[in-house]
This record gives sequence, structure tokens and C-alpha cells, in this order.
Amino acid sequence: LIHVAIVAGGSGTRFWPKSRANLPKQFLRFGAGAPLLAETFARTRLVAPAARTWVVTAAAHVARVRELLPELPADQVVGEPAARDTAPAVGLAATLIAARDPDAVVLICPADHRIVPSERFAAAARAAEELLARHPDRIVVFGIRPTGPATGYGYVEQGAPLGDFARLPVFDVTAFHEKPPEAKAREYVASGRFLWNAGLFAFRARTLLDELARQMPKLRAGLDELAQSIGTSRFGAELARLFPTFERKSLDHGVMERARARAVVVPDYAWDDVGSFLALARGQPPDADGNVVVGAGLALDAHGNVVDAGDGLVALIGVEDLVVVHTGDVTLVCRRDRCEDVKKLIELARARGFDRHL
Amino acid sequence: LIHVAIVAGGSGTRFWPKSRANLPKQFLRFGAGAPLLAETFARTRLVAPAARTWVVTAAAHVARVRELLPELPADQVVGEPAARDTAPAVGLAATLIAARDPDAVVLICPADHRIVPSERFAAAARAAEELLARHPDRIVVFGIRPTGPATGYGYVEQGAPLGDFARLPVFDVTAFHEKPPEAKAREYVASGRFLWNAGLFAFRARTLLDELARQMPKLRAGLDELAQSIGTSRFGAELARLFPTFERKSLDHGVMERARARAVVVPDYAWDDVGSFLALARGQPPDADGNVVVGAGLALDAHGNVVDAGDGLVALIGVEDLVVVHTGDVTLVCRRDRCEDVKKLIELARARGFDRHL
Repeated sequence: LIHVAIVAGGSGTRFWPKSRANLPKQFLRFGAGAPLLAETFARTRLVAPAARTWVVTAAAHVARVRELLPELPADQVVGEPAARDTAPAVGLAATLIAARDPDAVVLICPADHRIVPSERFAAAARAAEELLARHPDRIVVFGIRPTGPATGYGYVEQGAPLGDFARLPVFDVTAFHEKPPEAKAREYVASGRFLWNAGLFAFRARTLLDELARQMPKLRAGLDELAQSIGTSRFGAELARLFPTFERKSLDHGVMERARARAVVVPDYAWDDVGSFLALARGQPPDADGNVVVGAGLALDAHGNVVDAGDGLVALIGVEDLVVVHTGDVTLVCRRDRCEDVKKLIELARARGFDRHL
Repeated sequence: LIHVAIVAGGSGTRFWPKSRANLPKQFLRFGAGAPLLAETFARTRLVAPAARTWVVTAAAHVARVRELLPELPADQVVGEPAARDTAPAVGLAATLIAARDPDAVVLICPADHRIVPSERFAAAARAAEELLARHPDRIVVFGIRPTGPATGYGYVEQGAPLGDFARLPVFDVTAFHEKPPEAKAREYVASGRFLWNAGLFAFRARTLLDELARQMPKLRAGLDELAQSIGTSRFGAELARLFPTFERKSLDHGVMERARARAVVVPDYAWDDVGSFLALARGQPPDADGNVVVGAGLALDAHGNVVDAGDGLVALIGVEDLVVVHTGDVTLVCRRDRCEDVKKLIELARARGFDRHL
């Protein structure tokens, strides 16, 4: 059976001031929809019932996740006592799911991406399931056909075709590549053989645990120790004791780059990792002046701006190509092509002692 | 004796969203100081004690004025039941003061200008007093020596010198001129004989009432009727009944343009009518990046901006020559040279039904 594990560990500093230390991106609404995590949860209902859905999130956000997703069994929302990147988070999910069913197929989903339509997402999950029925030991990654030479994603280099599954093409994987410089990204895209690594994976629970035993044996040993307390009153204490000892590593670095058997499914849905405020502009059409306004906005001779007014009102006069984000206590005004620098700004804010606004 | 009448009737729409329908400009702080009305009140303490100081304001703002200026006798804060421009407001002040002392010198001060240093303001008031001792029937206007061809002020054309009073030059007045087009303003300034009408006046109470009898007889009759209730419990009801019947007219149009005997004192203080957010930039020196920030601000590669962060934080990335004003519910982002258009924006906001933000 397939289980869904939603990884909701992000801090979302790129969305400050809309996101905060205690309100990361996965809890935010972008445009008219539900918070991204709730959208993700709704989408995964087409793949597995709530009884087989898990969320791994920061310990501080467990209560908020349970409140947002009341259908989810409470013990399937697991709080990481410390941030350790995705390898420990995914290992934890695999350990919990394996305790129920070692042969379960685990679908790992980031909590904070946009995927439309949901039916095509379900089809991609079905493709992974069918592939794993035929090739049970592979680890599957979802690879997005690039629309440009993005330098913000890792790339998956496709190998020989493995056939179509659920009408989607699936390939062997030749290599995982880190985020490239732009020239390299152009080569990747021109080759037609490179796909964006969108952070969606599928594997049998036992396959991932085997790879951890081989590639991250300390993590695997810790997870085995933790597994002994699953279903007991000791679990929380054991998690708090063991998890912070795990090495901080991404699943890509820790497992995927050297995994023994891999495959890449190429979905046909529209994907947006909601990487900056410009994602707002992709989420809805601009008005007649080329402004994209989420919430209440007023524009006088203003063009090409992206506005998130929160619960308030943003008024623009004579300005162009800005991103303006209003919250009750903070306003961000950023040139549209400088959104990446919000992270730098947060460092500056911290250095200046504006922590209460972070 | 000299009485001070502070006219605090402004709606301050040019300062939206910092100013609101129920929080006009005179109640706002610009930079580090006290609210403009409190600064004005403090300044006029050098001219007359609180016992001889009056504030005429909108009825809706009486409580706020009393709270802001607790030293002021409560019955010297008078609320206009309707907005009728400055002629009725000044007539009301003159009527109230004349009831105590018809020979009193009345100094009319707008509530929302900046004047520094206060000692030079006191000297200008003294000049007016000394002039009125010599020429008791004149109405004195304070005329600011222009620093450029401003089109936003009325101009006072000076006539023959009347001598120096309190070491300040005083002239006869040839004419009052309305806000001119720019070409005309250039002529005015080039002539050296034109001064900005800064809205500060001094006169004996009886002189103004005589001019009203001559030029605005209906207003004068109404004020006389009102005067009968001064000091009685009927005053509030009479004010509410009579004031709304007064003609809406400025003191300039209603009295000054055709007054029989006028004089202009040329003060030597620095004057700023705080006409737009750019006044913030005149109130404090810019930082190394040329940004003027009131409140908490962060700037990354941002230059030449004027920021009022209110109680919050404004963060700028890569933007230039903007005015950014943050309040809890509204953010305004305006090109620096478009501040005058805030009024248009408010009309737009009203048309769009955003009244709760106005």
C-alpha cells in the first residue's frame, strides 16, 4: 500500500515578512487558495487516505499542523526536535511507515509546492507505484522538464527509458547534479536529458532503510534504536534524545547521489516551488496595468508590480516593477528582480536587533 | 493682552495613510518630535499663557485636543460642528476672545506647521504686537520670504515699509494673491516684493469683527447671536445651531483680500508647512545612502527614499526615490515626485469602497 509523507520542515525566509520564524511558508496562503500545506494535503488525498498520510515538521509547528489538518491522526504528525535537513526527516518517515508495513510504498512530498491539476499529480504517483511494482528496489524521483536554465534547482540526468507507466515516461537515472552555475544550466537544458529535481520521491520503505544502512549507517542505527519505542509512551522522549544526534544532510547528498537503483518519472503537471514572491505573479493573471495584487490594492500610474497586501491595503503611485508586501508590523518594498536578496535583508535585520519582526 | 488662537481644522488627506479621517495631520508626529499640534502649543507658550490660548478644531477632535493639551482650559477648546473653512473659524475665535477683552490682540496660528527656532516665532509675535500698538486697526499677516517659485501658497505683495518692529521688517500690504501658476510665481519671486502667505495673522479682536460686519455681514450677525450664549449652558447648542449656517469661506477670500488696513511682518524663522511626506526629509538629515527613515527601517542597495515606518518596520531592497509609509493596516508606496497625488488616490480608495482604511 502507498503512504504519503509530507515533509514540512521549511523556514521560508524568502517570504519574509509574510513568513516568520514561527509561520513558515507552508502555512501561508498565496493568493486565493488554502495554506500551501493544506493544499498539499488535499492533493495527496487522491493518492492515499489520511490514515496513511504523515507529516514531518518542526516540533514547534506540530500543534499548528494538527489544527490545520484535523483529519490526520495526531500521531502521524511528527515533530523534529531539531532541524537536520531532509535525510533524517525522510528516514524518520520511512522508519515510522516501515513499522506498519515494510513493503509500503512511501511518497515523499514537499509541503510547500504548487502542483496543478491534482489529477495529474495522482497519475504521477500511480506511475511511481506501477514502476515500483515492476522494479521494487528502485528509488524514484519526480523530474520536471525544465522551462529554462534555472540555477536554483538540482538536476536529474536521465538515462535509458524504462517505458511508460500510467502513461508517463520513466527513465533510469544517470546522475544527480547540484544546483549549477548558469552556463552549466544552459548546457543541461540544451541537452534535453536533464530534469529539475523537484524534491518528490517514491520508494519502498525498506529500500530507503537499506540505503541508509549502506550510506548513512549512523543515521540508520539511530532510527533503529528509535523504532523500538514506536507505539510506546517512550517515543517522544526517544525522538527528542536521538534526533538531534543525527547528521544534518539532505536526501540528495546523503542517499540519492549514490543510490544503487534509481528511476525518474516525468510528470505532466504544472509545478511551481513557490520560491519567491514572484510566484504570486504566476498564480493569477495581472490586471490591465500589469500589476498582480493579492488582497486589497490601489494603483495610480503604477505598472508591473506584485503586491501582497495581507489583511491590509497597499496603495501605489507612479511606481514600476516592485514587489510590495504588507503585514501588520512590516512592509517590504523590493525591486522585482531582487527578490533573492530577502535572505540578506533578514541577516541585516538580525544584526540590527529587529528580531521581533522576524 | 495677546491671545493665541490655534486653528486646527485640517483633514490632512495629503498624509494618508499616516493621517486618517479621524486622525488628521495636526495630531501626527513627523520624525522624533511631539504631534504637530502639541509642538505648536508649546511654541505659543512663549507668546501667551494657556489661560489665553484657544484651539478651534472639528467637533469630532475636541476630546483628542483636550487629552493632548491638558494644560488648556477645557472651554478654550472649541469644536466646529461643521467644516466651514477659516473665516468662520477665525471669526469664532475673535468672538470668544472679544467677549473677554475686545481690545485683545489675537494671534492666529495654524496647528500643523513647523517653525524653528521657537524664539524667533515669539519675536515675530512681538513684532505684530508692537505694530498693533502703533497701528491698532491693521490686520497683520506673517509673510515668508520665498525660497522658490512655489505654486502651492498664496502670495502677499508688500507695499511701503512701516519700519522695523522687534527687529523685523514690516510693510504695508498692496495685495493678496491666490496660488499662482508657475510662470506667475517666478515673476513674483523675481520681483523681491512678494511673500508667501503662511496663514499666520494678528489683529485686535474688534478689528476682525468690524471687517466681518463690513465684508461678511451674515457671518458677523450669526457670531453676534452666538455671543449672547457665551458663558452659559446654551453655548454648545447655539454653536451647533448657528455654525453650520455660516458661509464656507477662507479668511483670505472673506476678509484679507479687501481688508481696509493691513501689514505684513517678515519673520526670520525657518518655516515648513509640512505639506507632504517630503517634509519628513526636511526634518532630519539623510543617512549615508541618502535615505531618510523615521522609525525602524532597513535598506539594502536602496537610495534617496523617504520612509515613515510608524510603529513597524520598513525594509527596502534595490529601490530609489520612493516615499514609503507603513501603518498597521495600510502601506503607501509613492514615487518621490508624485506625493501630490495622494489626494487622487484617496478619491480612488473611496470609489473602490476602501473607506475603512481612510
